[in-house]
Amino acid sequence: MKRKNVPSVTINRLSICHRCLEKLIENIDKRKPKYISSSEIAKMTGINSAQIRKDLAYFGEFGKRGIGYPLTDLIRELKKILGLDRKWSVIIAGAGNLGKALVKYKGFQKKGFIIKGIFDDNPLKIGKKLNHIFIYDIKEIEKFIQAENINIGILVVPVDTAQEVADKMVAGGIKAILNFAPVHIELSSEIKIHNVDLSIEFEGLTYYLSQ
Amino acid sequence: MKRKNVPSVTINRLSICHRCLEKLIENIDKRKPKYISSSEIAKMTGINSAQIRKDLAYFGEFGKRGIGYPLTDLIRELKKILGLDRKWSVIIAGAGNLGKALVKYKGFQKKGFIIKGIFDDNPLKIGKKLNHIFIYDIKEIEKFIQAENINIGILVVPVDTAQEVADKMVAGGIKAILNFAPVHIELSSEIKIHNVDLSIEFEGLTYYLSQ
Repeated sequence: MKRKNVPSVTINRLSICHRCLEKLIENIDKRKPKYISSSEIAKMTGINSAQIRKDLAYFGEFGKRGIGYPLTDLIRELKKILGLDRKWSVIIAGAGNLGKALVKYKGFQKKGFIIKGIFDDNPLKIGKKLNHIFIYDIKEIEKFIQAENINIGILVVPVDTAQEVADKMVAGGIKAILNFAPVHIELSSEIKIHNVDLSIEFEGLTYYLSQ
Repeated sequence: MKRKNVPSVTINRLSICHRCLEKLIENIDKRKPKYISSSEIAKMTGINSAQIRKDLAYFGEFGKRGIGYPLTDLIRELKKILGLDRKWSVIIAGAGNLGKALVKYKGFQKKGFIIKGIFDDNPLKIGKKLNHIFIYDIKEIEKFIQAENINIGILVVPVDTAQEVADKMVAGGIKAILNFAPVHIELSSEIKIHNVDLSIEFEGLTYYLSQ
């Protein structure tokens, strides 16, 4: 499953396909074997069917010409490709409102993202629990990441400390950061950082409202 | 600018192009007229250049053959298409942790999303302010939407009241809802609802970590 030079938009598109197929399978009889064609997936996702075939082809031969893809196998393969077939250990840096909201967010655990600890520099918060998860001193973040083998760090600290905390995460051995702080973080190129911009969520709506 | 049957993926792609071009223009000398080709945009966004030309063609003729698109004009047109060239009035239903975090989120105001009021049913919260914005009784939401001509409602209430609050928003005249509640909301087809799933933000990272 190791492929180099797969464009990130391919991963985005496969992620969209995966979500649509997950929704589809909720509503059908799972005992009956079911095939789905790339043009049926195209209809659900709005992605061009040739593009879907091309994106999947990066990872092997899944479909049968003229029949399509076996639905449950395709979903399982997409999970494997996207790394959604396993559990990931996550920490949250920042126990402010957004940090608190994320700890309680039910979607994470359901998808395999297990929050192992929260970190803050506020003495009034350190030692307390949020949703059964401990708030540790931010000074301990590096050691904790090493000891607990943490995969992903969520950055929800204020802008002026974001770079410093990100550096500590990386020093502890984290390879992937989800950054909610609205600031550019400079990290070595082996570290993957995804900047979340919540205002993007509005864009489909404003297009619609402008019509 | 009114076009029917533009696929939502076209809007998603144009939104990605817009963001990349905005980043690009931050770093170049704005006094010099600059053209950009669809293949240069393709390189930045990872979207196929023929696809970019096709997506833009829904909205008119922007480029010059062999030269490309005038950069500032293209950005302005994309803003217009996406409805990002104006201000939008927004309310937030739910003054919990996520509601509080969203009120303070700086990205919204910067992009033209002005939060006009927050609504909750907790008497301890009603009448207080969050980030200079009043928390009103949820019972007043319908009247407020009408009186203040609100465009977009953000739904951050608990799952068990989400449908009820969404119905109130629609009764008040709201046409677009950004839903953070992890539950399916049933609304008439003229109302646009965008369900935010924060766990999606992880997917690019887990693919990378799986390599």
